[in-house]
Amino acid sequence: MQNLKDRILKDGKNLGNGILKVDGFVNHQVDAVLMDEAGKAFAELFADLGATKILTAEISGIAPAVMAGKYMNLPVVYARKRKPITMPDQVFLTLAPSHTKGRTVELIVSPEYLAGGEKVLIIDDFLASGATILGLVRLAELAGASVVGVGALIEKGFEGGRTKLEKMGFRVESLACIASLENETITFCD
Amino acid sequence: MQNLKDRILKDGKNLGNGILKVDGFVNHQVDAVLMDEAGKAFAELFADLGATKILTAEISGIAPAVMAGKYMNLPVVYARKRKPITMPDQVFLTLAPSHTKGRTVELIVSPEYLAGGEKVLIIDDFLASGATILGLVRLAELAGASVVGVGALIEKGFEGGRTKLEKMGFRVESLACIASLENETITFCD
Repeated sequence: MQNLKDRILKDGKNLGNGILKVDGFVNHQVDAVLMDEAGKAFAELFADLGATKILTAEISGIAPAVMAGKYMNLPVVYARKRKPITMPDQVFLTLAPSHTKGRTVELIVSPEYLAGGEKVLIIDDFLASGATILGLVRLAELAGASVVGVGALIEKGFEGGRTKLEKMGFRVESLACIASLENETITFCD
Repeated sequence: MQNLKDRILKDGKNLGNGILKVDGFVNHQVDAVLMDEAGKAFAELFADLGATKILTAEISGIAPAVMAGKYMNLPVVYARKRKPITMPDQVFLTLAPSHTKGRTVELIVSPEYLAGGEKVLIIDDFLASGATILGLVRLAELAGASVVGVGALIEKGFEGGRTKLEKMGFRVESLACIASLENETITFCD
């Protein structure tokens, strides 16, 4: 998605150690119009998969996922990192290491909103090592649902997440793929 | 907003003790089409305020806020409850009691994305006692910004948040106002 790539070059900050800061339009301040365009792009990329639900993880996956949900007319479930008091005692829970947080986070989905037989499209802000998205895959499998595709706004192509997901048979799409953050430069994949 | 009220009656669960569970379309599973309609309604209600930015709080405020942001062509900042590694050391931080979480949460905004002179429209999922929204007001004031309006998807009219905010001079709009959750019944305001 050219507008997203342009924005990454304009406002993204390469902090070194493989960290790309996009807090100005994705992770803290959100460019809602850009997210809308991303949602539309996901809807087009995944139109033929017969998805019945979109699954994402709080927090930063929510904006692109709800925009995709709007264009696909699908409900969006966001896995919670803490169980709220409104959630039943019996939940689907998995652990995912978060290297940007330096700790392991819980991903929790209520069985009320993820059922056996559902076709799940996973949407998140970043695809890097794939740790969070693999956690979402495990939640879908716990529920007896099948994953039909994985979409990310920004892929860090150098962290290997795509390979793991494609080996599991999933279609993987990202709207901007970064090949390298070496030498204080942002280089996109071919 | 009639569709929201209808949905609250259809899928909302009155858990007692003043707690309304809307996890099926707002707080865990999101009805993206309904949120889009809510965003449009906020954009119409607040069209004349000259807002320059929308401010919300993670997590459940994000969906309605980004939808409003799309229709108003405004950036959306969500206050974070934990400081990510990409955020500078010097931040705007306030504490807000969360009675649904039973603890005090931090609300954190980076000075990079909230500046003096901005006209801030606050959007959140719930307006109840106003504790979270008053926290967002304090963050805006810390930044030297002014609050021009407050919008909530669902107002609990019996918890007094509106009165506090209106006393401070803010225009307050909710898309569905609940007068009472007594006797296992959901009663809307007049």
